[in-house]
Amino acid sequence: MGGVKKIAILGSTGSIGQQALDVIRALPNKFQVVALAGGKNLQLVKSQIREFQPKMFYSAVTPDFSYEEGFLPMEEIASHPEVSLVIVATSGKAGLSPTLAALRAGKTVALASKEILVMAGEILIHEADLHQTQILPVDSEHSAIWQCLQGEESKAQRLFLTASGGPFYHYSQSQLSEVTSEQALQHPTWKMGRKVTIDSATLMNKGLEAIEAHWLFGIPFDSIEILIHPQCIIHSVVEFVDGSMKAQLSSPDMRLPIQYALSYPQRWPNSELPRLDWSKIQSLNFQPVDYDKFPCLKLALDAGRLGGTYPAVLCAADEVAVELFLNHSISFTDIAGIVQKTLEQHQNTAQPSLEEILAADAWAREHAERSYLCHCEEQERRSNLRKAE
Amino acid sequence: MGGVKKIAILGSTGSIGQQALDVIRALPNKFQVVALAGGKNLQLVKSQIREFQPKMFYSAVTPDFSYEEGFLPMEEIASHPEVSLVIVATSGKAGLSPTLAALRAGKTVALASKEILVMAGEILIHEADLHQTQILPVDSEHSAIWQCLQGEESKAQRLFLTASGGPFYHYSQSQLSEVTSEQALQHPTWKMGRKVTIDSATLMNKGLEAIEAHWLFGIPFDSIEILIHPQCIIHSVVEFVDGSMKAQLSSPDMRLPIQYALSYPQRWPNSELPRLDWSKIQSLNFQPVDYDKFPCLKLALDAGRLGGTYPAVLCAADEVAVELFLNHSISFTDIAGIVQKTLEQHQNTAQPSLEEILAADAWAREHAERSYLCHCEEQERRSNLRKAE
Repeated sequence: MGGVKKIAILGSTGSIGQQALDVIRALPNKFQVVALAGGKNLQLVKSQIREFQPKMFYSAVTPDFSYEEGFLPMEEIASHPEVSLVIVATSGKAGLSPTLAALRAGKTVALASKEILVMAGEILIHEADLHQTQILPVDSEHSAIWQCLQGEESKAQRLFLTASGGPFYHYSQSQLSEVTSEQALQHPTWKMGRKVTIDSATLMNKGLEAIEAHWLFGIPFDSIEILIHPQCIIHSVVEFVDGSMKAQLSSPDMRLPIQYALSYPQRWPNSELPRLDWSKIQSLNFQPVDYDKFPCLKLALDAGRLGGTYPAVLCAADEVAVELFLNHSISFTDIAGIVQKTLEQHQNTAQPSLEEILAADAWAREHAERSYLCHCEEQERRSNLRKAE
Repeated sequence: MGGVKKIAILGSTGSIGQQALDVIRALPNKFQVVALAGGKNLQLVKSQIREFQPKMFYSAVTPDFSYEEGFLPMEEIASHPEVSLVIVATSGKAGLSPTLAALRAGKTVALASKEILVMAGEILIHEADLHQTQILPVDSEHSAIWQCLQGEESKAQRLFLTASGGPFYHYSQSQLSEVTSEQALQHPTWKMGRKVTIDSATLMNKGLEAIEAHWLFGIPFDSIEILIHPQCIIHSVVEFVDGSMKAQLSSPDMRLPIQYALSYPQRWPNSELPRLDWSKIQSLNFQPVDYDKFPCLKLALDAGRLGGTYPAVLCAADEVAVELFLNHSISFTDIAGIVQKTLEQHQNTAQPSLEEILAADAWAREHAERSYLCHCEEQERRSNLRKAE
């Protein structure tokens, strides 16, 4: 297993992308950054390119860039012969087509963009099998499960995905409706991007993770349970057929699961990574999840069970709703309402093609926005009525 | 991996031996009991032989038995061609010579008798390596570590052996000196034999387990830590070089680690085994160990670090002291005193031969008993003095 791993990072300017580069900085002899694809932060993309001198690069918002040597679309980067491992850390569905290109070229994919697996899990797993390559999880929960499954001959019998519960787990329904985006962006334990931080607060994120776990580990939804664990030290638990369970534990720091995906099947020491200190851990707490208070979780699990194009619709509607919440256009509790309405009105397609998934995504975005406009009109009508009274 | 495993159980009438037979009863198609060697309970040995019809058997206290066909010494049973896996669950050092015979005959040994590894770890590990066979742990803590190490390319960096703390963890020093053997035999979570139950209450057991872990997993003593965890749900924790940790969890039931050693590398469903119910686990608690209150633990770790014949002396002195405590001859807190005096007066032999280990064992037993007699004389002298006053 000697030699340097040749890495492409799609989404290098996002939270996971930046933390992946932190890992690479700490272990300079282990990796060569062959390609970087950044998001909207042009300044940061340029500084990353200066530092890591990748042969290839991409940025969505730099048309002037595109004339420079080395500029390539993400699909070409992901399937390039120079690349051996592709970190997919793009937001939303942006990484879907490059991930497919990477798998079809036999690259190992370290997947941080859960939406991609949620939308097109069946297709991606099929392509990975077909080209005898692997999708390695980067999400801390899935990394935990994957670590616990190492060396086991049989599948997991049950998975327990742990959830911090987010910052509002003890809020009442009326308190939840008053939550601002500024409050929701303060996650108690994890340092993450904006979208996933809001998804953590609504528990939508845990639902998406259940769908992700379903595809990554081939486990039916009825065998995936959610466990509230506020300290975020146990990152998930696997139960085996004999009743024995394994858990993976660490400080809540995304650099650890990122590094494991990069070092796998080895583990490498990294003095930058924090260590758990048992002298400071007096108790690890657990409680069952409150589905009534966090309807997004139930919506996600239902969409996952139904399959077809429902999960893509779930993702798209959630993306629209979270954006509206971040823009102060809707309340925290409206997020679930918009997702639910969109799902209710969707006509499912079973075993969809990629095109059908993308069509469902587009339909859901339009529909979710229309739901919002109706919601506004309704509110305006009510407000006018009140004024008239 | 098909076929039936041919099992010999040494110590079939003890707690672990009986629970091993429970596992075999629950999974009748997986095993054939080829040999049974029982302890002092003649009635039970006979009933086990009737039930399992082993080809070979042994009992220490049945001279009439020895004329029957199939009666063989434990060394011959353990190395017999019909046997593929030997469960060593004898008490004290009784299993040492049969275990060596089993390893030299290339048998897999599932080891429940920790004293054997404590006394002669270096010799046993050397013989297992030499004959390319394995010593599989049965103790719940070591089984936990072993399960967590499956599929890992590198050794553990640190081990955290969990300890219930026993029934007296919150007792004051003066309360501890008043503890009766009846109280000490009531372990809060585990169903175990008498000797190991007392060793759990003094924490000597955890010290013996640290020595066992040192040999089984090749980990230096400075990288083995003890963690008080009263619920006995996390059975131990392994830390890897990257700071990630794995823990194994289950209901505190010895049948699970016994079965894992028998099913390894597979896992088998067994409806008799209890399952953890997360809806009933609100918290898992941890605290650092109090070495001052439980001097046996420190004595054991020191003996382990010093090596040579010290660990054998530790085991022998502890066995004598525990027996004296169970016979109401000494107090609970006298156990450590007897062990300490014996260790202090021992002349160590580095890298001892088996004969030197057995000689140290004999010396320690005699010495520990003499310590006790001195202790009695001293007490009598004081009592006479008090009367004279």
